[in-house]
Formats: sequence, C-alpha cells, structure tokens
Amino acid sequence: MALPGMRDFNAQALRKRYYIINHIRSVFEAFGFEPLETPALEAMTSLVGQAGQESEQLLFKILDSNYQATLEQIAEKTSANDVLENIKKQPKTFSSKICQKGLRYDLTVPLARYAAANRDTIPIPFKRFQMQPVWRGERPQKGRYREFYQCDADVIGSDSLLFEAEIVCMIQIVFEKLGIKEYTIHCNHRKILNALIQKVMGTDAPPAALFQTIDKWDKIGHKGVEKLLQKQGYSENQSQELTALLSQSKPMEEWLTFLEIQINGHNEGKEGLDELRAFWEYAKKMNGTEKVSLCLHLARGLSYYTGMVFETTIGNVKMGSVSGGGRYANLTSSFGWQGVSGVGFSLGIDRIYDVMNELDLFPDSLEGSRLAMFVNFGSQSENRILELLSQMRAEGIGAEYYPSTAKLKKQLRYADKKKIAYVLFVGDSEIQQNTVSVKNMTTGETESVGQDDLVAYFKE
Amino acid sequence: MALPGMRDFNAQALRKRYYIINHIRSVFEAFGFEPLETPALEAMTSLVGQAGQESEQLLFKILDSNYQATLEQIAEKTSANDVLENIKKQPKTFSSKICQKGLRYDLTVPLARYAAANRDTIPIPFKRFQMQPVWRGERPQKGRYREFYQCDADVIGSDSLLFEAEIVCMIQIVFEKLGIKEYTIHCNHRKILNALIQKVMGTDAPPAALFQTIDKWDKIGHKGVEKLLQKQGYSENQSQELTALLSQSKPMEEWLTFLEIQINGHNEGKEGLDELRAFWEYAKKMNGTEKVSLCLHLARGLSYYTGMVFETTIGNVKMGSVSGGGRYANLTSSFGWQGVSGVGFSLGIDRIYDVMNELDLFPDSLEGSRLAMFVNFGSQSENRILELLSQMRAEGIGAEYYPSTAKLKKQLRYADKKKIAYVLFVGDSEIQQNTVSVKNMTTGETESVGQDDLVAYFKE
Repeated sequence: MALPGMRDFNAQALRKRYYIINHIRSVFEAFGFEPLETPALEAMTSLVGQAGQESEQLLFKILDSNYQATLEQIAEKTSANDVLENIKKQPKTFSSKICQKGLRYDLTVPLARYAAANRDTIPIPFKRFQMQPVWRGERPQKGRYREFYQCDADVIGSDSLLFEAEIVCMIQIVFEKLGIKEYTIHCNHRKILNALIQKVMGTDAPPAALFQTIDKWDKIGHKGVEKLLQKQGYSENQSQELTALLSQSKPMEEWLTFLEIQINGHNEGKEGLDELRAFWEYAKKMNGTEKVSLCLHLARGLSYYTGMVFETTIGNVKMGSVSGGGRYANLTSSFGWQGVSGVGFSLGIDRIYDVMNELDLFPDSLEGSRLAMFVNFGSQSENRILELLSQMRAEGIGAEYYPSTAKLKKQLRYADKKKIAYVLFVGDSEIQQNTVSVKNMTTGETESVGQDDLVAYFKE
Repeated sequence: MALPGMRDFNAQALRKRYYIINHIRSVFEAFGFEPLETPALEAMTSLVGQAGQESEQLLFKILDSNYQATLEQIAEKTSANDVLENIKKQPKTFSSKICQKGLRYDLTVPLARYAAANRDTIPIPFKRFQMQPVWRGERPQKGRYREFYQCDADVIGSDSLLFEAEIVCMIQIVFEKLGIKEYTIHCNHRKILNALIQKVMGTDAPPAALFQTIDKWDKIGHKGVEKLLQKQGYSENQSQELTALLSQSKPMEEWLTFLEIQINGHNEGKEGLDELRAFWEYAKKMNGTEKVSLCLHLARGLSYYTGMVFETTIGNVKMGSVSGGGRYANLTSSFGWQGVSGVGFSLGIDRIYDVMNELDLFPDSLEGSRLAMFVNFGSQSENRILELLSQMRAEGIGAEYYPSTAKLKKQLRYADKKKIAYVLFVGDSEIQQNTVSVKNMTTGETESVGQDDLVAYFKE
C-alpha cells in the first residue's frame, strides 16, 4: 500500500483526473496564462520564511546527506549531553541544522521565488499557471491527503482589476466545460470588510483575530460568530449589528449603492468599493457575472490577502470550497522584489474530482479504456493479427494481442479487468472470409468487419 | 534560483517537454499500456530493499516529525555520548532510526510495490506506463540532475517475447513521430552472453564483476575492456578472444546462425537463443526490426536483468543512451509476490529533449506562444475589445488584453518577451471600419480582419 495519506492513481482514476486537468489547462491557456513547473524541493529558508509557524510544522524536511558531520561539529563545541538537551528543548531550531531542504507545501512559494529571481526576463504582468503536487504532514483523514495536486493561476506585477475579472471568468468557463452547474463564486474585498468592521465595532484597524473569527462563518454560522465576538469582548449590540450586516445578501448592483452609503467618508473603504466596481465592470463586459455574488462575511484566513478575495462552493454537494484566492501585495518581497501586486487563485482538483463523481458528470467513455484486444487462438491466425495490430497502432488506435493461448475464459477475464472496449476474434471462419468479429463489450453486440476496413472502423 | 541540480521549467521549455511527453504517451496507449501515478514518498524499507548500497547513498530521506522523541528514547537507554558515537560510527543505521520515508529514486520500486499490493485486482499481464519525476542526491553536473523525469513502460506477469518486440516497436514509433532518424536499438540476451563468457573464459557462472567490466565497453572501448580483464586475472588469449567475439557486428539472421554454432550444447545459451529468435519473429511481423541490432557487449549493469536487454543510442549526437531496459525475474518478490517475470524500459526525456534541440527537431510553432494580444488604447475601444476577447477565449483561442494604457513601446516589449504570435490593434479607424489590424509577429505583416470574422480567422 502507499504510505498513509498518499495515493496511487490507477488508469481509471487518471483518465478522470486528466479529463479535469486538460480542461483547466486549456482554459488557462486561452486566457494567456502560461505553464511553469518547479522542483519538489525548496530551500528550508524559502519555505519557512513564507509558511508561518502553523505551516512549518507540516513541512516534510529532507535530512542533509552530511548531517552527521554537523552533529559532530556541534558536539565538539559543546558536549554530547548539551546536544541532546538542545534537541529536546529546541527541536525546530535543531532540525534546521540538519535539514536545509524541504518539500514544497504550496505553489505560491515557488512562484514568488521564481518570479523574483527572473524578474528581468519574465514578461510583466507575469501570468503563470502551475499544476503540481504539494506535500503536507497533516494527520491523514477522509478527503485530506499528505500529497495532493494544487492547480494555481496567478498574475504578478499589475494592479488592474481586469485580472480579478479574468479569474471569475475562468472559473465559470472551467465549470461549464466540466458540466458543473450549481455553484457560487463568493467574492469580497478586504478593504470594504475592514471599513465596515471599523464603522460598527469602533476599532481602528481590525485585529487579525477578528478576521479569523469571521472566517469561521461557514463552520459555526451567523450566531456562532456573534457569540464568539461577544466572548472576545465586543458588546452584544455591536456583535449583532456586525453579523446582521455581514449576513445580508442582494444583487451586486444593489450592493454597490448600499455600500456607497455605508462606507461614506471612509478612505480605505472607498478604495475597496472603487475596486469592486471596476472588477464588476470588467466582469460584465466579459460575460462573467452570472455565478458571482458578494459575500461580506468571506474573509479568507490567509493574512497575505489585501484586496479582493474569492471562494467557490458547490450548491448540490456537501463539500468545502473547491476554489479560493485573492489579491495580495508583496508576495515576492521576502525574495528581494518589493512592491509588487498580484492576484491569483487555486482550483482544488481532488475536490472537483469528488464532486464530479458524486454528480456523475464524467463521460461514460472514461469509465473503461478505449482499447481493442485480439483473442489469441494460436499460430494459425497470428501473422494476420500482428499485421492488423500494427496497422491499428500506427494510426493511434489502442490495441493489443493476448500474449498466450490461454483458455478463452481467462483471456476474457483479462479484458474485463482492463475494461477493454472491444474484443476481436480472428478464428478459422474469419480467416476464410477475410473478416474480424468485433465484440462491443459495452453493448455485448458482435459485428463482422472486413480486415481491410478494420482501421477505418475504429477511426470513427 | 532553484536548488543545485534542480530546474525550473518555463513555458517555452514546457511546450517542448509536453510535445515529447504527449507523443510518448499516445504511443504507449496505442500499445495497450495504461498510466499509473504513485506518491513521491515511499517507505525507506521499500527503497532500501531494492536500491542496493550504491543507490542508498543517493536517497533523499525525510526527517520523521517525531525524530526528537526517538533520539530521547535512545539516549535514555544508553547515554548521550553513546548516541553520538552511534551517529559517528553508523550514520546509515542511525539515519534509518529518524527517517522512515524517502523520495523515490526510480519508478521501478513503486511499480513493484503497487503490482504486488494489487495483484488480485490488476489485469495480468499488467501493462503500465509511468512518467513522473525521481530524485537522486548525485553531485550536480552538466546533464545530470537531482530531480528528473523518468518515463517507464513495463509488462509484469508474462514471459512472452511478444512484449520485448512491442518495446522495440514503441521506441521506433516514438522516434519516428519525434523526427529522430539516426539511432540504433542495441539488444542482447543475458543468457547468450553468459554462455559465450563461460565458453571462452572457462568459468562456470560468470561473476557479476565480469558483467560490470563488459558494461564499461562504451566508456573504455574494446581494448580497455581487454586490459581490465587481464588485470582481473584472465589470460591474454582469453581476454582477446572474448573481446574480439563481443565486438563483432552482423545482420540478425547471420547472428542467429552464427550463435547456433557458438553455443551448441549449452543449455542456458540455447534458452537465450530461442528467446532471441522468438523476439525477432514477433518484431518482424510487427515491422519492428529496422533499427534493431544485436550487440553482444551490451551488458546493462543492473543486476536484476535476466533475459533480453536493450539500449538506444543516437547516431549523430554525442550523448549516452536515451533508452534502456530489459527482462527481469522476481522484481516483486521483496513485496511478497514471487515468481513473476517482467520486461520494461525507460525513455530519457531530458536527453531526448537535448537531442531534439541539438538537431533542431522541434516544430517552430513551439518556440513562441500561439497567443494573440490586444493593445490597450484606453476606454474608447475597450468594450469592443473585451467582447472580442471573450469570443476568442470561449472558442479556445489564446488571447489577452494588455491591462493598462502604457506606452505602445512597453506593451510591445511585453508581447515580445512573451513571444506573443499576433498583436491586435483596435484604434479609431478600426472602430469606424469595424475591423481589427492583426500583426503577425513572426512575419511582421499586418492584415485587416473584420471584427465578425476574427474568431474564424484564428480558428484556421
């Protein structure tokens, strides 16, 4: 078995995963995003600098090949007992001495590193997408894996709201192509949320803890947030007023009028509203508003978001968000590239896969292979079969020949396990008549096809 | 920068890599091989069991998250000084205590683990291909990386020589599709080589060291091997006779007659010759003999090969082998599945990439993007441009709109850096005439295209 929290993907699972990935890729490319791939390993300094305390615990660290030399060096300087005391008391500091490299836990750190290192040669704005696995040492549980694919698209080096609009357009085109119909792209703006909180709660700059509380909305609900706010020392009135405000829902045009009045005179709030309006204008002109809705209690925990934020949820399947993202400032600053604005989002391939399975949205053709298999009756028909086989393969038609004259039952069991689409018989009568008997394994029907027409038959 | 020995791949490199990978994938699938993907991490016990001493040093090991508890436990049982002594004297044994997981260094271990664990559900013979990165802690140098893609196809659970023939067919079709014309697929049979060595050198079962010496043929040549054999205690006559025999070259049909006489009466040799003949018959019937040639000094270092072995070299580029493989017995035995014969091979994507670059075999279209970019002249034409943009993208045509009204020179510099194929202008006169000026960035020519015909224009 694969290690806990990790998965092997067989052909059937991969056909479905590639189906999703290929659709996403083609949409990203149509929008001018270009692929990037980076190594699985990054320097621990890069990973830790960005990860923050919580994520750091989840990092898979690679033991340095010369770790014993390091340990000996430390022991020479101090004493063996001190080394062990060190390990006990400061396991993190200590592991940093024997592990210089780690596995990436997201695709954002590699993007920031790459963009900063190549800022003189990449086109700016830099529009890239990346679909690669990431690793996190989380406790394995249903739907949570230690190795999983992330699928990110980001634009770095422009503050145009055009790109926020492109993001919601891409999500909608991807979902349309995949056949996912009931979903909502919730959006919000950090600066608007800030302004509303300041106005209602009377605080100056809202503390991070307040965002984290609001971020729990989906889990603990309107009332839960209200209670938590009171626990944190806000008054009953304030807590009620804020949650009542954040739980409203209305069409975007009404929101824009409503918010204009609400945040009147608040500078940061006005910036946010102007950006929301610019986003909405672009989205309208690109037919990208249908599934988009403003959701004031959407906070997105990640502290690096500074502008618009997004999250997509599926309507008819119980499932967390399948996509999230937003605008950030200074993602690249820890790699020495300052003052760069960016916006990006991530599609959760594993969750989309689960949604599509549950809603039965994968085409039937992905269930089985498209392969044809010649039954092996021995040397009599072998020459002709190998010839036909080669013709089919040269035309890209998937075909094989059972490798031994095993009993027919065994050969058919193989075809069944492999979900072979067509079983082909070339027996005595077929040889005489220059035909192949083609059995469609889905319908169970058998057709007689001329040997010279076989390639054309499958080309259809 | 990426870590030493590892690489970032930008869009241009990836377009070329995907071109290779997609061709390989389609050929593998036409031959009935199905994809498998496995996690990057495997249990150290799986990796070490198969790797052997030399490879084990190259393993990237993952530090256990609870490594400090392990160290404390050891220290409690012994003493702190003993722990350090342990580390000094037995670094490997010691690292095995704090690292239970490692990164895969090939795709063979995951295959063996997967096939053994799923032997009751997979179709047998199990034909799978796998294209994923592997990691080896080698000293980085030109053309040798610490992270690189392997691309393997294997058949497990059949001893039919049909599959050896399929392998050489697949290599030839892949290379034909990629436009690589001058190359040779060298093949040999371990049992034939054994028989010849026994006959000439008078040894019973040839020692592994002898295979390793012969394996150096490409590096040190005919004469180098001869000298090395003498150093190892073989007589001048024997050494000369063996190397003279192994350096011969002739057409396969002549070889078959010649070897019949040479290994007359040698049981193992006869088995090998029968298999070589069966392989050749299959290959002939599938048109797969053109580039195949018997090379008696091909040994393939890996000790697990037990039957036919393959290696492909390029004629007009200085480069090691771009493909290798062979038949093995008992690959899965260390995972508890005994007596299973298999055959497989690997294509070196990095080397094929270098070969194709050197021979200029990539289509020109891969050099740049196929993107079209609308120049941004401001709000006047914006509505129309965003409409056209959406139409193009909905049809899968890659297109973008420069996000600000920067100077034309800056916008064109962006297009240049991104290797944009077409720059589209919608200025005052175009708006009046309902047209778009389409500048082809390769030819430098500009065409006027009706706005309603734009999608059709690019669809071609």
